[in-house]
Amino acid sequence: MSEKKVFAVTQRVRYAETDAMGVVYHSNYLIWFEVGRVECLRAIGYPYSRLEAEGFGLPVVEVGCRYLRGAKFEQLVRIETWLDSLKSRKFRLGYRISDADTGEPLATGFTEHLCWRRGVVATIPVELYEKLTALL
Amino acid sequence: MSEKKVFAVTQRVRYAETDAMGVVYHSNYLIWFEVGRVECLRAIGYPYSRLEAEGFGLPVVEVGCRYLRGAKFEQLVRIETWLDSLKSRKFRLGYRISDADTGEPLATGFTEHLCWRRGVVATIPVELYEKLTALL
Amino acid sequence: MSEKKVFAVTQRVRYAETDAMGVVYHSNYLIWFEVGRVECLRAIGYPYSRLEAEGFGLPVVEVGCRYLRGAKFEQLVRIETWLDSLKSRKFRLGYRISDADTGEPLATGFTEHLCWRRGVVATIPVELYEKLTALL
Amino acid sequence: MSEKKVFAVTQRVRYAETDAMGVVYHSNYLIWFEVGRVECLRAIGYPYSRLEAEGFGLPVVEVGCRYLRGAKFEQLVRIETWLDSLKSRKFRLGYRISDADTGEPLATGFTEHLCWRRGVVATIPVELYEKLTALL
Repeated sequence: MSEKKVFAVTQRVRYAETDAMGVVYHSNYLIWFEVGRVECLRAIGYPYSRLEAEGFGLPVVEVGCRYLRGAKFEQLVRIETWLDSLKSRKFRLGYRISDADTGEPLATGFTEHLCWRRGVVATIPVELYEKLTALL
Repeated sequence: MSEKKVFAVTQRVRYAETDAMGVVYHSNYLIWFEVGRVECLRAIGYPYSRLEAEGFGLPVVEVGCRYLRGAKFEQLVRIETWLDSLKSRKFRLGYRISDADTGEPLATGFTEHLCWRRGVVATIPVELYEKLTALL
Repeated sequence: MSEKKVFAVTQRVRYAETDAMGVVYHSNYLIWFEVGRVECLRAIGYPYSRLEAEGFGLPVVEVGCRYLRGAKFEQLVRIETWLDSLKSRKFRLGYRISDADTGEPLATGFTEHLCWRRGVVATIPVELYEKLTALL
Repeated sequence: MSEKKVFAVTQRVRYAETDAMGVVYHSNYLIWFEVGRVECLRAIGYPYSRLEAEGFGLPVVEVGCRYLRGAKFEQLVRIETWLDSLKSRKFRLGYRISDADTGEPLATGFTEHLCWRRGVVATIPVELYEKLTALL
């Protein structure tokens, strides 16, 4: 049994992210997944902006999210990101959102990404692939 | 074989909904699902604002979306909504996003909703339940 | 005394646009201004997507908004757009948001736009300039 | 000549905040103003969530923003917030957005807030008023 390497980052809930129910609107969790993903790529040394400068993109081809409890304005949330699976041209990330202070879980989810270059499916650049492998 | 009753509404893609890839940012499809859902509830005669005025809510407890092709600025998109399953206290809606002119599919997805009242799981109001049944 | 030609379009308030105060989050009015602007350009026969395809852009260089009353979920709002001033390389639009049913004013504002092409300030294309003139 | 006390916080630009022009969509600067404002209130010891728990709100009644240069994905931006004017029932904040590394200015703006309680204009709570005074 191997343990996933989990990358964590925190964000404070913005008022703009709440809705009339008084909690964070559900689509905003996908944006937090993006924050976790981007910071994870930065942490392993291959920022997404570099990838884009090289002509690549990692569009989301599928997303899923289960909501457990509503996040509230000014709450400090913890975004955990890990690599679920990795292939030559696509990979899947897992996420867990929780209260940064109490650890209470708020949501879990995943995103699946395809690697493409100028609109066509492409092999993940070798250096990125190797850095991602280290997360498994 | 029964056929689902599908409710359709169109929206024009806003510039605000696009991202630096030149297509709609993936979390915005969930907002289009909301537009489809809200218009569907209005169409069957039980607007969500009425439900809220009666103290009820239908929070999203799970969402999933598969992205097939990026929607572009000013594109007219068609949002189709249908009822996938209905229980006394929860239900699942299905969605299909396509180009309103060509019919080209852009995304498919679902949302699962729990009925609650003042923070506690509750039975879907009888009138709403009956109206939803008509969609099956 | 000349009267401004006012272009109007309606939108139904999305739940995603509300915040924990129970009304629409203030930055979303700027997105409604965009909806009014884009539909206005379409109405005069020069869609913004055509302008972009020709290599031009009309970035917002200044914006202002006064909020009079909070818009609510499912409210049908009317977005009025008019041309305030027009120069060879920039123009200013005015906006008024109101309840589409009662006419109650919700907000007023403006956006100032610069015409540019490939990152450099440029003269507004003649055809667009002429079509805009017709709005004065 | 008095110098304003300026409160600063940084944010990394999210992909979700960009648009098809490849830079941050203009309405998102208002959300950054919110981030600056909320962190400023936290810094002076009167978090906005406490104010809300006490039944108060500080709705934005006017906003203005001038855009100087487009912010880009993954750029680290610095949000500076200061108090422009303070009255018993309203106040105005000023903002400056710049590149956190180079100091290059990106935008300037302001928000004007009214204090209200349960939908009615109210006097700013004494403790908050005093803490705000210290910013002048």
